[in-house]
Formats: sequence, structure tokens, C-alpha cells
Amino acid sequence: MKVFSIFIFCLFFFTIAMNSCFSQEKLSGQLNLMPWPKEIKSNKAKTILDRDFTISMNRKGSRVYKAATKFLRNLANKTGVFIDEGFPFYNREKATLSLVFKEEANLSFNTDESYKLVVNNNKIEITALTDVGIVRGLSTLLQLIKSDGSNFVFEGFYIKDAPRFKWRGLMIDVSRHFQPVDLIKRNLDAMAFVKMNVFHWHLSDDQGFRIESKIYPKLHELGSDGEYYTQEQIKDVVAYANNLGIRVIPEIDVPGHAAAILTAYPELGSDENFDNKIVRYSGVFDPTLNPTKPEVYTFLDNLFKEVAPLFPDEYFHIGGDENEGKHWDANPKIQKFKKKNGLKSNHDLQTYFNIKLEKILRKYGKKLVGWDEIRTPSMPKSAIIHSWRGKNEGFENGTLIPALKNGYHAILSNDYYIDRMLSVDHYYKCDPIANADLTKAEESRVLGGEVTMWSELVTPLTIDSRIWPRTAAIAERFWSPKHITNIENMRKRLKYVNHELERIGLTHIRNIDVILRNVSNNQDISSLKILAGISEPLKIYNRNEGGTEYKTFSPFTLFADACSADAPDAYEFKKAVSAYTLDGNINNKENVLSFLNSWETGYSEFRKLEKSPNLVGLELHYQKLAEVSHQIKIAIKREKFSKKDKDSIIDLLEELSTPFVDVEIVIIEPLKELSTCLNRRFDLK
Amino acid sequence: MKVFSIFIFCLFFFTIAMNSCFSQEKLSGQLNLMPWPKEIKSNKAKTILDRDFTISMNRKGSRVYKAATKFLRNLANKTGVFIDEGFPFYNREKATLSLVFKEEANLSFNTDESYKLVVNNNKIEITALTDVGIVRGLSTLLQLIKSDGSNFVFEGFYIKDAPRFKWRGLMIDVSRHFQPVDLIKRNLDAMAFVKMNVFHWHLSDDQGFRIESKIYPKLHELGSDGEYYTQEQIKDVVAYANNLGIRVIPEIDVPGHAAAILTAYPELGSDENFDNKIVRYSGVFDPTLNPTKPEVYTFLDNLFKEVAPLFPDEYFHIGGDENEGKHWDANPKIQKFKKKNGLKSNHDLQTYFNIKLEKILRKYGKKLVGWDEIRTPSMPKSAIIHSWRGKNEGFENGTLIPALKNGYHAILSNDYYIDRMLSVDHYYKCDPIANADLTKAEESRVLGGEVTMWSELVTPLTIDSRIWPRTAAIAERFWSPKHITNIENMRKRLKYVNHELERIGLTHIRNIDVILRNVSNNQDISSLKILAGISEPLKIYNRNEGGTEYKTFSPFTLFADACSADAPDAYEFKKAVSAYTLDGNINNKENVLSFLNSWETGYSEFRKLEKSPNLVGLELHYQKLAEVSHQIKIAIKREKFSKKDKDSIIDLLEELSTPFVDVEIVIIEPLKELSTCLNRRFDLK
Repeated sequence: MKVFSIFIFCLFFFTIAMNSCFSQEKLSGQLNLMPWPKEIKSNKAKTILDRDFTISMNRKGSRVYKAATKFLRNLANKTGVFIDEGFPFYNREKATLSLVFKEEANLSFNTDESYKLVVNNNKIEITALTDVGIVRGLSTLLQLIKSDGSNFVFEGFYIKDAPRFKWRGLMIDVSRHFQPVDLIKRNLDAMAFVKMNVFHWHLSDDQGFRIESKIYPKLHELGSDGEYYTQEQIKDVVAYANNLGIRVIPEIDVPGHAAAILTAYPELGSDENFDNKIVRYSGVFDPTLNPTKPEVYTFLDNLFKEVAPLFPDEYFHIGGDENEGKHWDANPKIQKFKKKNGLKSNHDLQTYFNIKLEKILRKYGKKLVGWDEIRTPSMPKSAIIHSWRGKNEGFENGTLIPALKNGYHAILSNDYYIDRMLSVDHYYKCDPIANADLTKAEESRVLGGEVTMWSELVTPLTIDSRIWPRTAAIAERFWSPKHITNIENMRKRLKYVNHELERIGLTHIRNIDVILRNVSNNQDISSLKILAGISEPLKIYNRNEGGTEYKTFSPFTLFADACSADAPDAYEFKKAVSAYTLDGNINNKENVLSFLNSWETGYSEFRKLEKSPNLVGLELHYQKLAEVSHQIKIAIKREKFSKKDKDSIIDLLEELSTPFVDVEIVIIEPLKELSTCLNRRFDLK
Repeated sequence: MKVFSIFIFCLFFFTIAMNSCFSQEKLSGQLNLMPWPKEIKSNKAKTILDRDFTISMNRKGSRVYKAATKFLRNLANKTGVFIDEGFPFYNREKATLSLVFKEEANLSFNTDESYKLVVNNNKIEITALTDVGIVRGLSTLLQLIKSDGSNFVFEGFYIKDAPRFKWRGLMIDVSRHFQPVDLIKRNLDAMAFVKMNVFHWHLSDDQGFRIESKIYPKLHELGSDGEYYTQEQIKDVVAYANNLGIRVIPEIDVPGHAAAILTAYPELGSDENFDNKIVRYSGVFDPTLNPTKPEVYTFLDNLFKEVAPLFPDEYFHIGGDENEGKHWDANPKIQKFKKKNGLKSNHDLQTYFNIKLEKILRKYGKKLVGWDEIRTPSMPKSAIIHSWRGKNEGFENGTLIPALKNGYHAILSNDYYIDRMLSVDHYYKCDPIANADLTKAEESRVLGGEVTMWSELVTPLTIDSRIWPRTAAIAERFWSPKHITNIENMRKRLKYVNHELERIGLTHIRNIDVILRNVSNNQDISSLKILAGISEPLKIYNRNEGGTEYKTFSPFTLFADACSADAPDAYEFKKAVSAYTLDGNINNKENVLSFLNSWETGYSEFRKLEKSPNLVGLELHYQKLAEVSHQIKIAIKREKFSKKDKDSIIDLLEELSTPFVDVEIVIIEPLKELSTCLNRRFDLK
């Protein structure tokens, strides 16, 4: 009896769990929420949006006031409804949306971001412990609004939500290419839209020092080509982020990656005869601060004293990566210093440097974050290890797990190098913990992850398209429960969210046409759009092998810049081919044919364009694409496709698969699959 | 003999003049320069752009250095050429482009902006008296670059250029809708691209006070909804403009249009019991500074003392318009003051105010510009009269000519209200002087004109599309010789320049799709683009009659916001219809048919969209458009079209011509013309 009742009891819970699981699955087909919430249930209620929509807050609080006002603007803009009250009220009865919270948070990685959101009939409530929870809830609510044909409505749901990881970051490198304030702000808006909470601002590197310094003005005057943030702008960005519940972690990368600093103050360098200049190429360079000089620490002390107060967060990122030590090895004084101080390796010397740096930062109330090289024996456990090296860099098990096992808190970026231009599917599958064998304590020290946007190959025109929409899917990985992994479903939601991200300010879609118009020298771009729909920029830095093809000021207005990862038609074509090869169904056939047709007619439109220098490089591949498309189309129509036909296609595909103008056509595999299938089906020998 | 030789002499000059005229005409068919230069001759040379392109300056000068660097970026971005040298040199021999100038100008309306530009074989030279002349020459050179199929080249020309008018302005109202710094900067870039030289910054009005004040912080704290420029931002914009050779004329509008000021400091108002609030609607409102209170002058003195140094220009715009005096009339103390001081009318009282204000400004080194209401007997002749009232406001001969005759310098805006949303043809035809009967002295006092962009109905998403490209044509009116008036030719050049303006940063084309995606709730927008191609927003403020439909925070993301003046397909269709009705030629017929067809299929695509609230309002007109198109198409194909058929079409067109969702379809007239012609041609009775 006892056993039986336990069994019934278990069955009961299992059923509830499964129901909840199934209903989530079902709901995620209907809704386009991203990141998917921890718990969501439908309640059949609904709130219709009309001009009488009002918001009430239970207490004053500037973060919520601003978020609610912005929410109202977004709601009006998205729906076209002329909402009468443009600002939220305090303690108003009968408001449509009530925001209830207990405290205003000081942002840290322990800030409570959870919230509860209930849509009832003509009544919505978001409750949270902190104002940041309310901000997160408003993001969800904004994504809940749906058209029912004649109105926009909030459908009835009960949502209880909280993040899986505490650190959900995006790093933007503003050194290799400077990115202006408004661009940073729109990316912060996009981050908040998908509930990210850390903006890591990579402010200094070989290619530019981007903070105004009043104590060392040569830093921005000589180290930035005039492209830097004033201290007022930095404060403005930090305040903007803070209102969105986003922490700002600044990075000044030392002792390596210091060419811009040394352009301004060469006397701080390790090679006193080196001709320091702002670097214009990509790669790892030699200029390094001299850790044996007291002046270097005086400089750092003054600089951090000036800069630290601009950033209220308790953490400061000091880089610390990729110092290859060439200038150290070549400097006899440094060698002598090492011997004298019993520092056996450059690694030891860097440790010596880091320990001194850590003390300086502690003086100004800051703890350290650093790239994983900073994990040396004497680094205090209060430092956060930022794991960037993995298999590719010779660390078979990555650098995250060892840091955790070593007692450090850590964040993972190795898997989230968004500038490697891989497919969203790849990033989405990477889990910061995955199946690692960790103790509870170790696991709790995984703070989360950070998407890294290195800017060698992006400008303000293109950077949004390199970060988004893929980062939205990674944001889901960082926020949502571990079991939310269905790729197809993520893709479906991302498609909608992609447009919403643009609606709130990103430029990743709209700028494509601008670039293509330029490529075509202001002619009709429809044929270029068709080609761009199946072309992707070369991945994993193959666009710029050796780092020397592109300089900082090279043109990033080329066909490759109009293309991005996850070429939209490629994905659809793959699906169409799979469906067609599976069953040969007439609809699937038509679908495949319409793609083939678009590439063939695309090329004939392309040929009508007046020749222009940037079109020349597209000609050959486009022509082959049209030829392949034509042949396969004929084969499908005539139901004839011999082995010889197939071999001829495979040869053409081989040629088509070569890179051109820094892109590759990414439908080679489905075209091969299609050819094989056609040959199997229609081979007449 | 003498007579004959004079005749020959005249004939000789006439021939030269005509040749030059013809060759300009011919060249303007080949080139897309805008504004068209004063003198241009082809010399058959050419300079091919390759990676070795270099620039040399004859002397140091930050304006030219910056413009030349920007020119290099633009050149690389436009052409895709990886130019090796990213910055200009000083005094380098053998540079491709030499920049030669004598002095760095302090901007005023007397700055010499003339330049000479010669493209020889692999050698280009721009010479000018001032650095501003060089900046203007670089704008021309950037527009000269052309594709010859495999390369970009500068074709050989000799250009000697100078502006017709000294004041070629654009006013942007940032009060009704705030416009952020980056948006102002991209508009400054666009202005420089077409050689405009005055940015009039309308910084204060009933809807918002947009300058940070440290002395009167409530101005920006309470008067701006948090949307204002910091003093640092203002300095930044002014410096940015200065580098482009653009003067910045700030405007603080007083004593009327003062609701935002009075929201902050109600004690300065004329009605002490009035509940002052930031205005959210459009129109003319009552809150007015009280000219009888000494505190008002103390306030203005302190404010101008603080603000004047931010703007180096010698002129300051004090508004002065549209004070209807209601609060003055209603205030007994003010009435008493008037009597006591012998001020007979409110006009006299405003004069009293202006004279005091003029003295304050003079103290801070500023001369006055004001809207034409400031022209009262005691206004010093050093003030510039900004003519905004014309026929519509009851001034049959405008307000420019009287000001000139009265001894003032003046600028014209009445004809250049770009927010009235009229066709580019209309604005282009308006000449600041036209055929007015002026003495030489009077004519010399016409400084030029200003395009005014009032921002009641625009947001940062749409403002570019309301200013551009039409303003480029007006810029030509202000710069080029009076006889450059060919509309067809202007349209041709503008089409190219339109895309170039976007390439250098404007968003007027790219944002159309963003808005349409929103209107469609993120569905396919091709059918909406077709409809937008022949739809224009209601003109002359009919979109917002009475000023109360739209509030500041109403949605400006509607179908009307995706449409703009000069609907592109409408213009092409008109031409197609004219050609077809003229001769019935088969090509012209096909052209007309393809338009009709696109509207018919557009509608059937539209019907496939999932219904969404913002699509509902388009349904009826789109359906009628499809019906008209279908009937006319059939008529053309069958060559049958009776009077009855025609009448039925005319009825449909009547319905189609009604406004809907704040737009109107602008092909009614050509459709009528077409119907009439078809009936004449194919009437079978």
C-alpha cells in the first residue's frame, strides 16, 4: 500500500511535469518569446490593447519609470495604437498594467532578476523583488503582444521566470573599429530585449585607446585617431545601461595589446627603441608595457584612479591576454630584473605585474576580471577568470573547468566568438556547463557566458549584422532552462525576434540594401539580394588570413559585408530539398523548383546590370549557379537524370564551392543531395 | 566695317556662351553633380582610382585634413578600392590629388567658398582661397567618381565654382521631436555633400527646451522629458559642423513658443495662474514670457551669457514669431504697463521686448536673426529678417521683399517649408529672388534661403525621408546659377544623388522597409512597397488638421510614414502614360501594362497576408486600385473601351482619390488621362 501510494504520487508529479513540458512545447509553437521563460502556462484570458491602456507603478523608481515609458513608446510604435497616456502613473487604481516591486537594485551578479507576469482579462500584473525584475518582465510582455487580425492583444499567460546564469554578457571591441555612442546604445536596447545583463566594453587595444583621459590626454589624442569616448559619454552610456539593468564592465587590456598606449607614452614600453604606432592590421603585436619600471605602475595607478569612478561596477577587466613577451626577451634590463627577482619565466613576470595591478585596482574598489592567462598561482580568488581559450588554442578541455576546479568564478567566451561567423545552430548548442563533471560548488562558480564581438572586420555599418540575431539565441542559452534546445523551434522564434530587434533600433537588416546598392553602383539590387540569400562571409577569420588584407580603413562595403551567417534562403532551400528528396511530393517539388528558378532568373537580371568594378567578382560564380540550377530544373521537369548528368553537376558544384570575393555559396550540400536523389529517381542509364 | 566687326565680335562671344551652355547641358546628362557647378568643361583626361591614390595638402589646417581623411574613407567605401594611404600628406610631391589653399576661414556669410578643380591625367588639383573652398571642392570631386565598368575613374574636367547665395541653410526643429546628436551629424554630412552652409538649430519651443543649462537647470530637467543636448554635445556638433564649413545658428524662440521654458520657470510667464506644461500637440499656444517683468530680462541675460559662448557664430536666432498675445491681453498688469509706456499694441510691446533682447545679445557679441515679425521700426539694421510668411499667411508679396526694401538683410524660408511635403519640382522652381524688382543694393541683401524642417510629424526614424532628397534640389537652387532650372535633368541627377546621400549616412531609404515590416507585423512587404510606390502622405499639414490627432508620442510607424513626397513609381507612371497616350508605341504600351499589372498582382499578394490591424485601412483602396488596373489592362489588350467603361473607371477613380490612413494615391490624374485616351482610341460605342 505504501509503495503503491508512492507510485501514484510519483505518477501524479510525472504527469504534471510532462504536461507542463508538453504545454511549453506547444506554446513555443504559438509564441515568439526569446529567451523562453522558465515557466509559462496559458490561462485563456486576454487584454486587448487600445488607447486607454495605462501603467501604474506601486512606488517611485527611475529604472522602472524609464522602462515603462519606453515600453509605452514601443507598444505604440509596434501596434500603431494612439495610446493616450504617454507616461506611467504612481499608485493608480484600475491601470491596465500594474508594476509591483520592492526594491531598487544596485547592479551586481547577485541582483535578483526574477519576476512573475500574469495576463488576465484586461488586467496585467508584473511583480518582482527588484526593479530589474520588472525591466525583465516588461521585455517579456513586449514580446507577448500579438495581432488577432483586427486588434493587438496580450494573450492570457501566467509566467514565472528567472535566469539560469548570472552573467549574460556581450563584449564589443571598440578598439579595432570605433563604435559610436548611439550604436552602443542600440545594442544595449537589443541586449535588454533578450535579457542580457553585462556589457563588456573592450576599450583599449593595439588599434586604439578609446577613453578620454584628463591626466594622460595623449592617450586619446595620439592613441585614437580622434575616435574616443569623452568621460561624459562614458557616464551617459553607463547610466543608459544601468536603466536597462545592464552592468558595464570596462576593459583596459594590459600589459600586452598596448600599442595605442605606447604610441602616446613610448617611455612605458619594453623596447625603448621601438617605433610605436597605432596598429592598422589584425593580429598579435609586440608592444608591451615594461613591468620592471616603477613609472608603469604610477601610470596605471593614476589612470585607474581617474577611470575607475566612471564605472560603478565592482569589476574591472584588465585583459592580460596574448602577451608573447618578445620585447621582454629582447630587453637585457628586463632579463636582469627577472633574474634578480627570481622570476623564471615571462609568465612569472606577468604574474608579478598582475599582482601589483590587482592591488592598484583594489585601492579603487575594483575586483579583477581577466582573460584566462591571468590565472596564476598568486592571483586572488576574488578575480573572475574569463575563459577564451579552448581546443583551437590547444586547451583540449578548455580553460573554464580548470579555473572552477581551482576555486575561481569564471565566465565562458570560448564557444561564443560571434565574429567567427558560424551558424546560430552551432552557438545555440554550446552550453556553458554542458555535461562537465562538477561539484555543486564548482558549478555555482560558473557565472555564465559572454558573446565576444571582435571588431577587426566590422564597422558601424555592419557590426549589428555580425552580432545579431545570433546573439539572441545565445542569450536564450544563458537565460532559459538547460532543456530548451530545440533548434527548429528556436529558428522559428528567432525569425520573428530578428525583425523585432530591428524595430527597436538595430540596423542589421536595413543596411544590407545600402551595401548592395553601393556594390551595384546604385543600380537595381534584386539580383544581388538573391545571391546574398545563399552566400555567407568566410568563417573563422578566413576572410582575412594573416590579418594583413584588411586595414582598419579598408572598405567594409563589399558584397561580403552584405552577406551574413545563416544565409536565409540557404536554410529554407535545405529544408525544401530534404522534404522533396524524402517524398517527391508535388508541393515540395514546386518549392525546390522555385528556388532553382530564382537563381537562374537572378543571373539573367544580374547580366542586365551595367558592369561595375564590384560586380565583376560575382560574375563567374553566379553564372555557374545559374547553370547548375537550370540543369537540375530541366532534370526535375523531364524526369531524366543520368549518372553522367549527375557527374557533370558535381563537377560544377566543385567549382561553385570555391570562395569568391570573401564569401562562399552555402547550398552546395543540398544541391549534391538533390543531384544524388534525382539520379537515383530518374536515372535512365 | 566697325558695325560688322562688332557684330562678329558679338557672334564670337555668343557662340562661346552657347557652346558653354550646350556643353553644360550635355555634361549634365552624363554627370550626376548636385549642385551643378558654375562653370564646367570636359578636357578628355582621366585619373583612374587605384590603391596608390594619395592626397597632399600645401599647408596644415585641421578642416582640410579632416575633410581629406573623410574623403579617403568615402572613396574607399564607395569604390571598394583598398587605398593604401589612409591619411593625407603635407607637401608631398607626386600626390594624386593636390589641395592648395591660402587661409583657414572663420565662418561667416562672407567666407569665400569658391574653388577650382582640375582633373588631368592621373593628377587632380583643387585650389581655393580658403579651406572651406577646398571642402566644397572635395564634395564635387566625390560626386565626380564614375565606374567605367572595370575601374572607378575621375573623368577629366575643369571646374570653376562659387555659390550664388551666401546663406544656404537647413533648419531642424528639435523641440517638437527631439533629434539625437548622431542624426544631426549625418544631416550635416548630407548638407556638406550638397554644399549647404548654415545649420539653423531650432532648440526651444512649446514642446521642449533642448539645451542643458547649468544656471537654470530646470529648463532641461523639467522642460525636455530628459531629451536635451548637453553643453558638451552642443560643442561637439558645432565643431563637427565647423569642420564641414557649416555655420550653426542656434534659436531660442521668445517671447512666444515658451511653454517649455515656463514649465520650468512659470514665474516668468504672462499668466501667473496658467498651468504650464510641456505641450504634446501641434499648434500655436498661449504661454508667453512677460515683457514687463525685469526678472525676465535678468533670466534672458543670464541664459544668453551662458549659451552664447557655445555657438561661435556672430548671429543668434531669437524666434519672435507667432505671439498671439492672449496672455498679454488678459493680464491687467501688462495692460497697465503698456499704457504707462505708451505702447499702443502688442506689436509695440513685442518691439519693446526685442529692443531689450537685442541689447543683451549685443553684450555677448551676437547679432540677431528673427522670424519676420521682428521687423519693427526700432529694430537695428544689423538684424537679419528670416522671412517665413507669404501668401498663405496673408502676405501677397511675401515678407522678404519688404525687408530688403526696408534696408535689412534677409533670408527666405516661406517657399522652402519642406515639411509641407510638396513635390521636389515645386521647391526647385522657387527662386529666392525670382523676378522681383530690386535695386542692386537690395538684391545684395538677399543672403539666401533656408529649408525648414518642423518636427511635429517626424521622429528620428522618419525625419531623413522628410528632409531628403528634396533638400538636395533646393541646395542646388541656392548654390547654382539661376538659369539651372531643367526639372527633368534635376530629377535624373537627384535619383543618383539620393542613393549617395544614403551611402554617406542618411537613413531615408533604408528605413522604409523597417516601417513596412512593422505595418505588416513582420510579414513579406513586397505588396506594401508597391502601394507605397504610388502613395504620398497628405500634404500641407492635412495629415494632422487642427494639430490634435497626433501627440508627440503618437506612433509615427504607420503606412504614411513609409511613404514620402514624390512617390517614385507615380513619377515613372506619369511619364509612361504620357508617352503611350502620345503615340501608342508598343514599348510604351508594355511599360504602362507592367505598372497596371504590378498593382493588380500587388493586391493579390496583399490579400495573402495574415490580417493585421495596420493592414485593414489599406484594403479598400488597394482593392479599387487593382480593379481599375485590371479593367484598363483588359481594355488595352482587347482594344475596346466604351464611354460607359470610361465612366465606370472615372467613378472608381473618384473613390480611389479619397485620402486613407493619412495618405493619398497620386496616380489619379494619369489614370484619368489614360482612360480618356483609351476611350478616344478604342471607343466602340
